[in-house]
Amino acid sequence: MQPSFIDNLIFFFDLLGTVVFAFSGVLVAGRLKMDIIGVLVLAAVTSIGGGTIRDLLIGATPVFWIKDSHYLLTIALTAIAGMGIARIQHRFPWYLLPLLDAVGLALFVVIGAQKALSYGTSGVIAVIMGCITGVAGGVVRDILAGEIPMVLRKEVYVTACILSGSIYVILLNLGLGHVAAMFASMLSLLCVRVPAIFLHLSLPTFHLGKDE
Amino acid sequence: MQPSFIDNLIFFFDLLGTVVFAFSGVLVAGRLKMDIIGVLVLAAVTSIGGGTIRDLLIGATPVFWIKDSHYLLTIALTAIAGMGIARIQHRFPWYLLPLLDAVGLALFVVIGAQKALSYGTSGVIAVIMGCITGVAGGVVRDILAGEIPMVLRKEVYVTACILSGSIYVILLNLGLGHVAAMFASMLSLLCVRVPAIFLHLSLPTFHLGKDE
Amino acid sequence: MQPSFIDNLIFFFDLLGTVVFAFSGVLVAGRLKMDIIGVLVLAAVTSIGGGTIRDLLIGATPVFWIKDSHYLLTIALTAIAGMGIARIQHRFPWYLLPLLDAVGLALFVVIGAQKALSYGTSGVIAVIMGCITGVAGGVVRDILAGEIPMVLRKEVYVTACILSGSIYVILLNLGLGHVAAMFASMLSLLCVRVPAIFLHLSLPTFHLGKDE
Repeated sequence: MQPSFIDNLIFFFDLLGTVVFAFSGVLVAGRLKMDIIGVLVLAAVTSIGGGTIRDLLIGATPVFWIKDSHYLLTIALTAIAGMGIARIQHRFPWYLLPLLDAVGLALFVVIGAQKALSYGTSGVIAVIMGCITGVAGGVVRDILAGEIPMVLRKEVYVTACILSGSIYVILLNLGLGHVAAMFASMLSLLCVRVPAIFLHLSLPTFHLGKDE
Repeated sequence: MQPSFIDNLIFFFDLLGTVVFAFSGVLVAGRLKMDIIGVLVLAAVTSIGGGTIRDLLIGATPVFWIKDSHYLLTIALTAIAGMGIARIQHRFPWYLLPLLDAVGLALFVVIGAQKALSYGTSGVIAVIMGCITGVAGGVVRDILAGEIPMVLRKEVYVTACILSGSIYVILLNLGLGHVAAMFASMLSLLCVRVPAIFLHLSLPTFHLGKDE
Repeated sequence: MQPSFIDNLIFFFDLLGTVVFAFSGVLVAGRLKMDIIGVLVLAAVTSIGGGTIRDLLIGATPVFWIKDSHYLLTIALTAIAGMGIARIQHRFPWYLLPLLDAVGLALFVVIGAQKALSYGTSGVIAVIMGCITGVAGGVVRDILAGEIPMVLRKEVYVTACILSGSIYVILLNLGLGHVAAMFASMLSLLCVRVPAIFLHLSLPTFHLGKDE
């Protein structure tokens, strides 16, 4: 019973993160005036790009969305619904998308770390795979859109992923149950990201002072 | 006898598509004033990039051009010949390259779908792998060239791939032979692409109306 | 005894190349004013990106840095030290970084070719895998930084890799020992790159003369 409940929870979280990230891909596609195929491609890249790169690196091929068709179905439905919803986005509060993105990130980091561990990686690699699952989709989306990837320049984005992934791995090693470790990890990410969104926090940058 | 004929046909089509796509890579390299190595790299990326990504995703590693040296040999010869031919391209009619590209696309979509099916994927995944085989090489070429990938912005490019791949998978499922399904699939792609080239058709775009 | 010495030598060379390439990633991150996470990411991508793509293509997954934590540790230490050293880079002679880069390239090409051969590839594929190991990390770094990859436009960079990889494979086939073939290969790369750096040599470029 218990493992089955956890598996279901992980699967539900994974699809929830897929919806959120696919919707952010739809918004970028809208800004670039893409046709419906471009919208689908950008929604897919944003939401399953990170997990795909994770699966390739740890050797879990065929990658997850080839094995399980729920992901592509979720993306297709989100893209169609998202094109309608996106038209009224000016009525949303400005912080809605960043908050949704933080939720998606919290879900994907913990799921990525969990999958890496289930393939027998070390804790450090699991944290890195959590980060890749969370951010690599957005990086590929930005590259396709011709922009320098946002996560490499903004706020405490990756730092939050590292923290959240580390908390998950450490709590598991301390003997905590899966569900508790997952929620603690996701909560820690939200505790970093949500204030960062509202206060525009960022890490001190490193620069060589030449071109300023 | 019969399977051997089909295998030979697929192999011939694959090399033909490689020649066409490699030549389009040569033309882009020429526009960017690359040296001969850049020409080779761009020819290779354009022609085997899509199939490489397909092989990685379905777990068919080492990828196809590592196992079979005909592909790299074809690319090298095409790049060398292409640098000569490209110099007189102003004498070609403007529609020659788009038409060649449509032929290459028709070949690669059906070959990609066919390979995915042979690895046991579902029909939907086979269609997607056909599309990736057809367009991903051009996407990577455009990214390397510092441009927003053309296929995400132009005409009914990916739509044609989806249609053509679907026709192949559906006809096979209806019990049609491989050769007939392949030709029907390729014909359908040309029926969409060729008018699109001459009439500059495109799908209605989705945009959020902010920046216009 | 003998194989153990060679293995140790290859491992030492691999980490040395990792340090050099990670440092060049730190310098690019500094120019782009990234925070410490961006520095770590760019250092990692530059130094292990090429080997990662090689491992994916030949099917050697999980990729090398997942199996052996020395690489990530080396990158982290290099990034931290590099951020300090980079601040005084104006005191270095201008040719220091290109020279270090040439050393890293010489190391990575031979290591990449050696790994491909150990996975049973042909000599031509081993040369290509050596080139990919040497240059692909820099290509991904440049794409992330929003630039057209330097290696596709500049000097005799990839040519030197092809030459050096070919010498390694040919000498091995002629029956020379591993260590001798490695040093001959690396020496040949430096013989091409070092004069190219000081004399700004480049191959004749191929261009279509339209936009000039």
